[in-house]
Parts: sequence; structure tokens; C-alpha cells
Amino acid sequence: MNSPLRVAIAGLGTVGSKVVHLLRTHRLLHEQRGGRSIVLTAASAKSPKPELELDGSRWFDDASAMATDPSVDVVIELIGGHQGIARTVCESALGHGKHLITANKALLAYHGNELANLACEHGAVLAFEAAVGGGIPIIKSLREALAANRLTKVYGILNGTCNYILSQMRSSGRDLASVLEQAQELGYAEREPSIDVGGLDTAHKLAILAAVAFDCPISFPLEHVKGIGSVTPDDILFAEELGYRIKLLGIACRHELAEGRDTLELRVHPCLVPAGSPTASIEGVSNTVVVEGDFIEQLLLVGPGAGAGPTASAVVADLLDLARGHRVASLSPQAKPMETLPIAHRIGAYYLRLMVRDEVGVLALIAHALGAQNISIEQFIQRRRWPGQLVPVVLTTHQTNEAAMQRGLVAVQQLDAVCDHCLIRLEQF
Amino acid sequence: MNSPLRVAIAGLGTVGSKVVHLLRTHRLLHEQRGGRSIVLTAASAKSPKPELELDGSRWFDDASAMATDPSVDVVIELIGGHQGIARTVCESALGHGKHLITANKALLAYHGNELANLACEHGAVLAFEAAVGGGIPIIKSLREALAANRLTKVYGILNGTCNYILSQMRSSGRDLASVLEQAQELGYAEREPSIDVGGLDTAHKLAILAAVAFDCPISFPLEHVKGIGSVTPDDILFAEELGYRIKLLGIACRHELAEGRDTLELRVHPCLVPAGSPTASIEGVSNTVVVEGDFIEQLLLVGPGAGAGPTASAVVADLLDLARGHRVASLSPQAKPMETLPIAHRIGAYYLRLMVRDEVGVLALIAHALGAQNISIEQFIQRRRWPGQLVPVVLTTHQTNEAAMQRGLVAVQQLDAVCDHCLIRLEQF
Repeated sequence: MNSPLRVAIAGLGTVGSKVVHLLRTHRLLHEQRGGRSIVLTAASAKSPKPELELDGSRWFDDASAMATDPSVDVVIELIGGHQGIARTVCESALGHGKHLITANKALLAYHGNELANLACEHGAVLAFEAAVGGGIPIIKSLREALAANRLTKVYGILNGTCNYILSQMRSSGRDLASVLEQAQELGYAEREPSIDVGGLDTAHKLAILAAVAFDCPISFPLEHVKGIGSVTPDDILFAEELGYRIKLLGIACRHELAEGRDTLELRVHPCLVPAGSPTASIEGVSNTVVVEGDFIEQLLLVGPGAGAGPTASAVVADLLDLARGHRVASLSPQAKPMETLPIAHRIGAYYLRLMVRDEVGVLALIAHALGAQNISIEQFIQRRRWPGQLVPVVLTTHQTNEAAMQRGLVAVQQLDAVCDHCLIRLEQF
Repeated sequence: MNSPLRVAIAGLGTVGSKVVHLLRTHRLLHEQRGGRSIVLTAASAKSPKPELELDGSRWFDDASAMATDPSVDVVIELIGGHQGIARTVCESALGHGKHLITANKALLAYHGNELANLACEHGAVLAFEAAVGGGIPIIKSLREALAANRLTKVYGILNGTCNYILSQMRSSGRDLASVLEQAQELGYAEREPSIDVGGLDTAHKLAILAAVAFDCPISFPLEHVKGIGSVTPDDILFAEELGYRIKLLGIACRHELAEGRDTLELRVHPCLVPAGSPTASIEGVSNTVVVEGDFIEQLLLVGPGAGAGPTASAVVADLLDLARGHRVASLSPQAKPMETLPIAHRIGAYYLRLMVRDEVGVLALIAHALGAQNISIEQFIQRRRWPGQLVPVVLTTHQTNEAAMQRGLVAVQQLDAVCDHCLIRLEQF
């Protein structure tokens, strides 16, 4: 039996405590599977946790000091935040040649390239399975299971809070504010929900996924990030009537240009997806990631995108890989960054809801404004209700390009009768 | 850069040829990712393949001689069959300390324990990602990504041919024989379909999954294996009316007995699954595997269960793990075998279709026969059509146990009016 793997944990919130619990619960199993024992040597958190049995591991008030302690082989960072102490702990650990396991997607999105360089320089491993998709082993799948392929697409539902909100809005007919309040009560949404609802959390995760899938440096911030704030219960109903569901997706595609150069398409926004598609069927706090490659065709993973148990499972899986001596380069920070494709180049269909004053001839004007941009309408829903009042007019387009759609939208908004709009992209996922 | 990994391939059918193609296509990518070059050193097949560019690798008429050649580090066995030359090649390779990659589920089901012992004795790796679920990385997920957990369940749609047939029967209303013929024309079913349709292929894969998930020796043959041969278009329609779809599932559960001993439940049979469940939504030749564990909760994977490209992707993933120097014990042949739970102990609900002569009072007799076994009926469909003729009577039961259900079925079959029956288990998957 090899020498024990000595682990220090920084941060003992719900996930950190669960990691401690998991290591205690399956100590023997982990020893068998990892080929050596895993020992929690040290711990640090904002305040001591007397309720956690830390098995005689050393307590550090200063997490950075812990990260450089000679008795530590691996540091698990579960503090969170992309600045401050979390960043210092990670840099200290890697700078001292200690392996780092982190679930901190914001930190990776902003500073992942530097951390990966630091790991490389000091012969350490930077592992972050828990940072994307919670318990879903998407990082391992991309780096190992699908390593034979040239991957072309990674997309999915990467934020459980948003998916819960959209699912609840659909099933209850309530609006976002009301569902969000309930989600906060149930612990499915943060007190400060804007990072989730605004799409930033999805963007963090998408940036990481794209870098791992396409062997390129992490590119962050993303140009196009839109959350679910403008989705109304009406949109969800109309989508359903048209055969779709609304999901917040993170989408990363690699496009091969004629001259052999690749460009990267990265976007986060609500999408209409066909009601029968696997993506549409993922409801509640679950996450899903779909990967496409030249030999695998398509692989879809579904699992708990958050929660202490699944996240701890991912953290300890990274730990077991380290115990087994597995070393896979986590990121390619030195690779040439890929050009990113502006969203104006997107080719696809659109859902457009307009709030219009119910007047004679307005539909013709809308159709004409879109037609002038070569946008043809596929489906149209209009239910006249109150002459002179605002009514929704909903349409979907045939395939067009984003630039034309945006020009069409500007023209439509200039019509006197049109007061408000909501534009959502259709994806065949 | 490390020394090249020298690979010999035995069998150049569709999968073998695709592996050669994949290695040629992504030679540089694989070298980068694996940290060393992967060289196809030798090949062997029933007949030479002049159309394959084998890049100067040596040709062996005798695959067993190739498997022991000193110039070979890894043997890829893609011959198939659980006896004969495939078995000899695998034993020779491992017996000479060469790593073995195989997609041969039948061989593993019958002889996997011996092969794993042989691998262990000779310090070699036995890898078989491609043997279960085609391109779905279920073996890696069980052994590595979910290694932190105590797993409790693995189940899924493990045979693409059966799933294609059931999907087509549902969408077209045609019977099995007619759909099978079409599937054979399209290459989705073998000329000799009984291994797929009869459930044996699913049983091979399930036996392997259970051994990997629960750290026990492979237990094969299984006690309860039933294919889709008795499923009629009527059953599919009735299931749909009741809110279900019919899927052929392989199900492995670990049950903890009171005294701490575990028992293993292993069964392959058609199931009614709720129409809204993820399992139900997997149509066509796709496979899906669901895994449950104590911290991960639930993980679901969906992908191409067969096909040359996805299978080659899985084979080369194993090769890249070897190139990277990863070594994970593949099976636990030395572990104590788990007791298996007879199907008579199953607790669950049932779908029963009876063909009965349309006579007054027959429903009461059926209900009475089942009630005598404490089986209560949940839903009932009967459409009287031809007095005195055979009509289907369909019912679902509340939760009961298999033994009671079988006794009830015997009693029902003894009724004069009852001529034929089809019993399918309901699962909440």
C-alpha cells in the first residue's frame, strides 16, 4: 500500500462539510479504490465547525498558510468567489506544488489559465470536476472518455436554479418573481440570485467546458450572455403551443473555417427547444450536457447540477484520480486562443413575441418589415382580444441569420402599434 | 516524449476498420492527449483487407501468434464470440503481460473473471469500455467518476436493436416480425437476431455492469432473462393509453440485508415505464444507462449503443488511458460473489393483458382470482367487441410481489374464458 494522500480542505460550508462526511463514510472503499488511504490532514474555514468530526486534523485560521504547509499533498478549495482568499489559496497551493481540487467556476472562468500555467510549472494537478454540472462527470468525459474524438459541440442546461424556475413557471403558470421567491425559500436559489438568473453562472461553466472540449485557453467574459429575466409565463405558454419548451442553454460550437482555422461560437441565452427533445425533458434542478464529436456522434449526460452530495461525489472522484496517480492536463492555457464568432453570424430560427395595439393592418406591417429582411414566417399566433388594447402577437421564423433578424426587429419596433417585444432563439437541441 | 505505444488489432470488421481509421485520422491529437504516439504495429483478420491502409504494420494470419509477439504492447480484440479464436487471443495476450482492449461482451460475461485474474497475475490491464453501451463511457463512469460512492442501482436500455424495434412498433403500429425484417435491411439487426431480441445481449452487458458497479465477480448466466418476443402492437398501444412505454431493460440492484450482507437483483425483461420518464424518451438505436449511488443521487447517460464510430471512440479512449499510464482494476474476480435475489422476491406493479372469450361475468372472475392473492387492480381496460369471441382485457395492479402475481396468473389462466396472456412488469424508471 502506498503512502496516504494528505488532504487539506479550505471552506466548510454545505459542500465542504459533505466532503468531510463522504471521506469518513467510505474511508475503506476509497482506500481500496484509490490504492492508498486518503487522510484529512488539515481544515480551515471562516469559523470553526465543532459539529464536524475532523478526526484530529489540524485547524488553520489562515487558509493560505494551510495551503503551503509541508504536511499537505492536496488542497480542496471550496470557499468560492473569484477574488480574495479563494484565489490566494489556489495560487499558494499550486505555487507550492500541491495538487488543487476546486469547485469554483467563477475563479476558473476568470483565472483558470493562470492557475493551469502555475500547476504546469510546479508539476501539480489542477482538478475541477465539481465546477461544472455538479455530480455530472463532464470534465472527465471530455478529457478522457471522448479523448479519441475531435469535438465539435458542447451545450446544455448548466444552471439548476434557472431550470427549476423555468420548470415551475411552466407547471404553475406563475411569473418569475413569484417562482424565484419560492425557490429561495426551498434553497434552490441564492438570496442574491442575479448571477444565476442573469446567466453569468452558466457563462462561467460554458467558458470552462469549451476550453476543455476544444483544447484552447479559457475565454472569458463571453460576448453574449442573456439570462431568463425577460421570459414571461405567456412566452412559456406560447412556446408550448408551438411545440417547444424554453430552456436556458449554454452553447459552445467549434466551426472550421475554409482555410482550416477554427472559430469558436459561445453564447448563453434562453432557447426554444422542441418539446420532444432530450434537453426539453430535463426539468427541475437537474443539469444536462450534450457533447458532439466526429466519431462518438452524440453523448448526453443528465444529473444533479448542484447539491452537497453530488458535488462532494465529484470532488472525491478527483481525489481518487490523484490517489491512483492519474495525471491529465486539465487545460491548454498555452494553446493559441480561438477567434470567437460574433452572434451576428448565427444562422437559425427565432421566436418573436410582440405586444401590439390591436389595430387593423398591423400584422401585414409586421410581416412586411420582416419580409424586407428576407425573413419568412413559419408560424403565427394572434388572438384578437381588445380592439385598441395591447395584445400579444407571436411568430416563429424559418431559418435566417441573426444580423437580418436584428435589423427586422428594429424595423418592427419602429411600427407605431408595436410596444414591446421578446426575441428568443430556436435551437434543434 | 515517451516511447510509442505499440498496438496490435485482431479483427478488421466494421469496428476494427473504424479503429484503424480513427487512429490514422487523429494521430497527432492522440499523441498530444496520450503523451506518446500510438502505433499500429500489427493486424490480423480472417482475410486481409487490401482497402485498409495499415501503414506498414505487420500482417499475421494467426491472431494468437500476434497476441504474443514481443513487438506488441496492447492487443485490441474485435473478433467476437465467447469461444474459439477470440478467447484464445485474449488469454494469450494477457498471459504474456500485454494489455487487452476488447469490445466482446459475450466473452466477458462468460470468461471475464478468468481474464481479469490473468490480467492481474501478469500485471496487464483488461479494458472493455466498448463492450457495454457502445460509445457511452459507462465503465469509466462507474470505476472512476462515481468511485466516491457506494452504488445501489444500474439499469438501462442496453440493446439498440430491441429499442429500435420497440420504437418502430410504437410509431408504425406494425408487429415485431415486420419491423425486424426492416431493421435487418437497414443493418440495425443481425441476420440471426435471437441474441438481441431474446435479451441475451442485454444480459451479457448487465452482468458486466453489475460486477463493475458493485465490486463483485461477474455472475453469468442470469436467472431471469426475457426478450421482447412476446410484446405485441396491442401491448404497446395499451401501455400508451395507460401512460407508459414498453422498453427492454437490464436492471441490477444491490440490496442491503438486515445482517449487513448484500444481495444482488439482476434481471432482463420488457418493462412498462412512465411515458414522461427519461428512459421512455430514449428512442431508436440509442442506449441509456442510469446509475444511482449514495452521494451522486442519480446519473443518466444516453448515447449510441452501437455503430462503428462510437465503438471505435470507446476502444481508442481505453488506448489513450493506457498511453497516459492509467491503471484501474477492471473487475474484482476475487471478491466474494454476492447472493442473487430470486425474481420471486420482486416487489412492484404489473401490466397484464389477457385474451378472454367475451362472456358475462368473466371480469369478476379475473378480479376475484387476483384478489385472492391480495392483488388489487389499479386500472382496467376492456372493450367488449364480439360476444363469444376473444377480446383483450388489460389491467395494471397496485404494488404486489412477484410470487403472489405468479400465483394469481396461474389462477387466472385456469379460468375457462381465458386463452392467452402477456405479463409485463411496471418500473418507475
